[in-house]
Amino acid sequence: MNRIGRKYGVSLFGESHGTSVGVVVDGVPAGIVLSASDLEVDLSRRRAGAKGTTPRQEADRPQIVSGLFDGRTTGSPLTVLFQNSDTRSGDYARLVAQPRPGHADFVARRKWNGWNDYRGGGHFSGRITLGIVVAGTIAKKVLGESVKIESRIVEIGGRSDPAGMEAAVEHAMEEQDSVGGIVECTVTGVPVGWGEPFFDSVESVLSHALFSIPAVKGVEFGSGFAAARMRGSEHNDPIVAADGTTRSNHAGGINGGISNGNPIVFRVAVKPTSSISKPQETFDFATGRVEPLVVRGRHDACIALRMPVIVESMAAIVLCDFALLAGSGIDTGHCEF
Amino acid sequence: MNRIGRKYGVSLFGESHGTSVGVVVDGVPAGIVLSASDLEVDLSRRRAGAKGTTPRQEADRPQIVSGLFDGRTTGSPLTVLFQNSDTRSGDYARLVAQPRPGHADFVARRKWNGWNDYRGGGHFSGRITLGIVVAGTIAKKVLGESVKIESRIVEIGGRSDPAGMEAAVEHAMEEQDSVGGIVECTVTGVPVGWGEPFFDSVESVLSHALFSIPAVKGVEFGSGFAAARMRGSEHNDPIVAADGTTRSNHAGGINGGISNGNPIVFRVAVKPTSSISKPQETFDFATGRVEPLVVRGRHDACIALRMPVIVESMAAIVLCDFALLAGSGIDTGHCEF
Amino acid sequence: MNRIGRKYGVSLFGESHGTSVGVVVDGVPAGIVLSASDLEVDLSRRRAGAKGTTPRQEADRPQIVSGLFDGRTTGSPLTVLFQNSDTRSGDYARLVAQPRPGHADFVARRKWNGWNDYRGGGHFSGRITLGIVVAGTIAKKVLGESVKIESRIVEIGGRSDPAGMEAAVEHAMEEQDSVGGIVECTVTGVPVGWGEPFFDSVESVLSHALFSIPAVKGVEFGSGFAAARMRGSEHNDPIVAADGTTRSNHAGGINGGISNGNPIVFRVAVKPTSSISKPQETFDFATGRVEPLVVRGRHDACIALRMPVIVESMAAIVLCDFALLAGSGIDTGHCEF
Amino acid sequence: MNRIGRKYGVSLFGESHGTSVGVVVDGVPAGIVLSASDLEVDLSRRRAGAKGTTPRQEADRPQIVSGLFDGRTTGSPLTVLFQNSDTRSGDYARLVAQPRPGHADFVARRKWNGWNDYRGGGHFSGRITLGIVVAGTIAKKVLGESVKIESRIVEIGGRSDPAGMEAAVEHAMEEQDSVGGIVECTVTGVPVGWGEPFFDSVESVLSHALFSIPAVKGVEFGSGFAAARMRGSEHNDPIVAADGTTRSNHAGGINGGISNGNPIVFRVAVKPTSSISKPQETFDFATGRVEPLVVRGRHDACIALRMPVIVESMAAIVLCDFALLAGSGIDTGHCEF
Repeated sequence: MNRIGRKYGVSLFGESHGTSVGVVVDGVPAGIVLSASDLEVDLSRRRAGAKGTTPRQEADRPQIVSGLFDGRTTGSPLTVLFQNSDTRSGDYARLVAQPRPGHADFVARRKWNGWNDYRGGGHFSGRITLGIVVAGTIAKKVLGESVKIESRIVEIGGRSDPAGMEAAVEHAMEEQDSVGGIVECTVTGVPVGWGEPFFDSVESVLSHALFSIPAVKGVEFGSGFAAARMRGSEHNDPIVAADGTTRSNHAGGINGGISNGNPIVFRVAVKPTSSISKPQETFDFATGRVEPLVVRGRHDACIALRMPVIVESMAAIVLCDFALLAGSGIDTGHCEF
Repeated sequence: MNRIGRKYGVSLFGESHGTSVGVVVDGVPAGIVLSASDLEVDLSRRRAGAKGTTPRQEADRPQIVSGLFDGRTTGSPLTVLFQNSDTRSGDYARLVAQPRPGHADFVARRKWNGWNDYRGGGHFSGRITLGIVVAGTIAKKVLGESVKIESRIVEIGGRSDPAGMEAAVEHAMEEQDSVGGIVECTVTGVPVGWGEPFFDSVESVLSHALFSIPAVKGVEFGSGFAAARMRGSEHNDPIVAADGTTRSNHAGGINGGISNGNPIVFRVAVKPTSSISKPQETFDFATGRVEPLVVRGRHDACIALRMPVIVESMAAIVLCDFALLAGSGIDTGHCEF
Repeated sequence: MNRIGRKYGVSLFGESHGTSVGVVVDGVPAGIVLSASDLEVDLSRRRAGAKGTTPRQEADRPQIVSGLFDGRTTGSPLTVLFQNSDTRSGDYARLVAQPRPGHADFVARRKWNGWNDYRGGGHFSGRITLGIVVAGTIAKKVLGESVKIESRIVEIGGRSDPAGMEAAVEHAMEEQDSVGGIVECTVTGVPVGWGEPFFDSVESVLSHALFSIPAVKGVEFGSGFAAARMRGSEHNDPIVAADGTTRSNHAGGINGGISNGNPIVFRVAVKPTSSISKPQETFDFATGRVEPLVVRGRHDACIALRMPVIVESMAAIVLCDFALLAGSGIDTGHCEF
Repeated sequence: MNRIGRKYGVSLFGESHGTSVGVVVDGVPAGIVLSASDLEVDLSRRRAGAKGTTPRQEADRPQIVSGLFDGRTTGSPLTVLFQNSDTRSGDYARLVAQPRPGHADFVARRKWNGWNDYRGGGHFSGRITLGIVVAGTIAKKVLGESVKIESRIVEIGGRSDPAGMEAAVEHAMEEQDSVGGIVECTVTGVPVGWGEPFFDSVESVLSHALFSIPAVKGVEFGSGFAAARMRGSEHNDPIVAADGTTRSNHAGGINGGISNGNPIVFRVAVKPTSSISKPQETFDFATGRVEPLVVRGRHDACIALRMPVIVESMAAIVLCDFALLAGSGIDTGHCEF
């Protein structure tokens, strides 16, 4: 379903070329100071514009239509809408017969018996992540200043140095191709004890959310896949203080699925953008044969470039839910009546 | 919480050195032929015994205490118990003051204010996975013969050849150390269309379940982290037939979070067993200083060796849930009354 | 939370005097023909206008902002907004200090530390039920023509004859007072077997939804409270045909929490509208004393008069969820691609 | 499903004539002192024995098989089993062809295609409520001494005086018939603010749980159905103190679905026991005709007599869940390590 969260419930809706996309956030504590300009900070980080990102330009102006009164959250569901404006639906009409490789075109058509809105990827559009950024911004406010969440790109096209990463994107663009990358996120300030065995471990709930982000194909915590090549004596993190501080952090801040007070560290593998202008082949349902395909439209050459803020927002959403379940989070005062 | 599933609900309970561990499986279709010996097949795969696995020997004899009548499931919750017998609790008493590195000892004690059952890892014991195997066996029956789930170890200690993997375990044992590994799982026969955008993608729900398994620190689908180093033209899988068959399978059988009819392929990174006899250091709450620690007790040198059946079971549980949500699964006949 | 449903998920949002109220419906099958005018049918039944209902006039024009493409549902969340226009917020300012008897004013202020939107009852406004009617209309389409849901007022102010009911409302209005009533709902065409023991009985899930409707204080199925005064020999419904038809229907179509194929019948007790112009007393937080209060604003003298369509909609939502869980519901065809 | 609760999760399992019935309670705070004899107090209230209750005698000795260590809860799921012993399955064999009026026999057979365990009502047996009493006892401990929950029978067979109630049961027994009743429950000490609009009102969640209890056909809060016959001026409860105390309590302690600090009061209508020895008629699937039926077996003449403790337990379970969601409940100390 299009909803996540136990106490902090985030519901997404909208299609790329429909009227609007948006989000309903349920469970927001009352009394949080919030304005559209607060939302703009992370929205502008998400917005296209840098080299390697789509030339589609949307104002992405958030309209708060419920849950806010006199500049503060009311405790009722907070709803934010974004109008879709810069749409060129004509670009997508032929995709009905010839589904794009690497895209959801084929599965969506089969799953919804041909009734899905195929324009611009419909509900699979990256525009859906606007709501994630909104919910993430509010989640950060609930978590408060003690919890810091920071994401950054650590690899593009197999390169981890800035110049190499930039070159990888440029070469891909020149060849009308795309390139993948890896985003790393570090969260400090999470107290000991979030996460619930057996099935709601911190890793379980975070990965559930992270794998919802379009294009994510891998998630690892701490040493992750490298841990599979380590010895126990090397991987085990010795505890060196009464507050649980460990000498190393191969566990990525999580033991037994529960936060241990050290920084939570995870990495997310982002595949190369599926939409490329370089000619490809795929099945054509009109001719019944594999045929050449050139995907038109405006696309990101490297979708990973826009991921850090989305990964951060998703982490904020999940951690906010853990915080509220644990009875933590922002204190907006007491009503004297 | 200790429960997963929307229509196929699996609830785990038990502690390593308590009376018993077990599972309640809710949502099992009625009329499935089932016996304790059906359960034994996968339980014996899980059981210790091979080189590199713990010398602790449990009969692991499943007692079905509800949900079965005349050899068939009744449609009511199916409950299976396993008695704990071969326990040596004395081994664990000192861990209260000196939490083992890499273990949940410290976080569990803090989270439950010191009231947790610390013996043998308590609720964090690998014995909890007995219930997973039971629920997985029944899930496979619900899925029927068309869906095949197979897991295998593809890497141990960084080696992927059989002799190298074996040597990696032996060397670790000789040095009273442990070693990690990678398990790959392939599922064939899943129809097009399972998985729900936005938050209940196949990857999301599978990873949620997989990261609950103790010692799992990474999950990737299809090309996974390697996809981050690929070009779009290389990663995109051309569709070559009307049923959605793709020429390559870099997507691991999933597009836009929805199964595309090709084999679902994923890999799981398993960290080296935390419990090692090799001396380590950790904080001692009795002395208030970092002190040497030798973990006694009986342990697996390579927990990854016992993982394939657990990974398979987890996959079966998740896919059975998707099948029931989609209205698929075993047909046990119609009541003429 | 502001959400209900397992496969048919309904999320409500909005406040009486905010920008808008609305609903997100997740899990709507794709391909259902739907237009704003389809929604108007039940919305007009809900709308104020009859004697005894509030003089507040809202256009209540539904804007479908997602989930619809070319006149059919897409399978993605369907979102509908209603603008709030005819608001007179000044009426409510003094209620902060002097909470209205029978209203949520006091509890809302305490629960949300004074940050709730108190204008017009805020999130407790009856306007929230607009979304219920929308979700109910779509639910009826999913259920199809074989399932018929009909509600009617069977009692107002203790009178069950039309003239008496009308008189009860008029007398209450003359005295600036309000009056309660009882709504009965009958559902035919539900097949045998909906409802899940133990906790998701048809009665459980229906009552959960019905008690969410503002002003509902009682729910009974079949003979209900009268059953408590009957003998078993009188109450038991003899089965008289192989399809489960019973001679009487004291059970209201439900045995053991599961639909038995006979009409599902239930009644809902609606309290008199809390807002009355007749002078009352309540605590004044400004003076610290019990003080007289005259509630201004525009109100229904008998809220029960507007209930039938809301009760029907709620029943449709719940039954649609059961239908989808059972794999039933509308067939919108098969995609040939 | 057989599970209820958001933070306090109760899963029931078992069939009347299977090996055992039981419950898994997830979300129990760690450190609560608990023993089998604590459980016995309410179990003995539930147990048969009084005039009008079944002659079936079960020891009902609870076996705690997980979640307890050194006499305190561990924070892991608490599982309790009850062996079934005094079963006479032969009594029920003929019910397969001739389903009992008022029972789940017919619907269960249809729903589970004939694979359900029909003996003794199987999963529909009143024995399932043993687990409810266990979960209720623990819930009361979590709620602490400030919250008091008390249920009592207020009506049997239409009589509300002790002698009349007793006579009603006796007359029913003499005529091999059964009789219904009404149970009232009062809860004091619930703070202002439990319950969540829109769908998780206190009434919604309580009624959901109460309607799961076999034989319950009506639930009302405060004045309930009588409210439908009242004027607003009569029904509205004036607030008379700053803590929210009201002069009357027609609302039953709940406004807008949220607890208002006054006693929560509700009544539950219990139908007459369906199993009666008096001859009845019902469809015989062997002959294809309506045939006479005499239900053998041992039954309660008035199941309402055993209801108070079950209603109380259910209320405790629901309120415990609200308490944990609100961050309230028992404090079992802090771990100094």
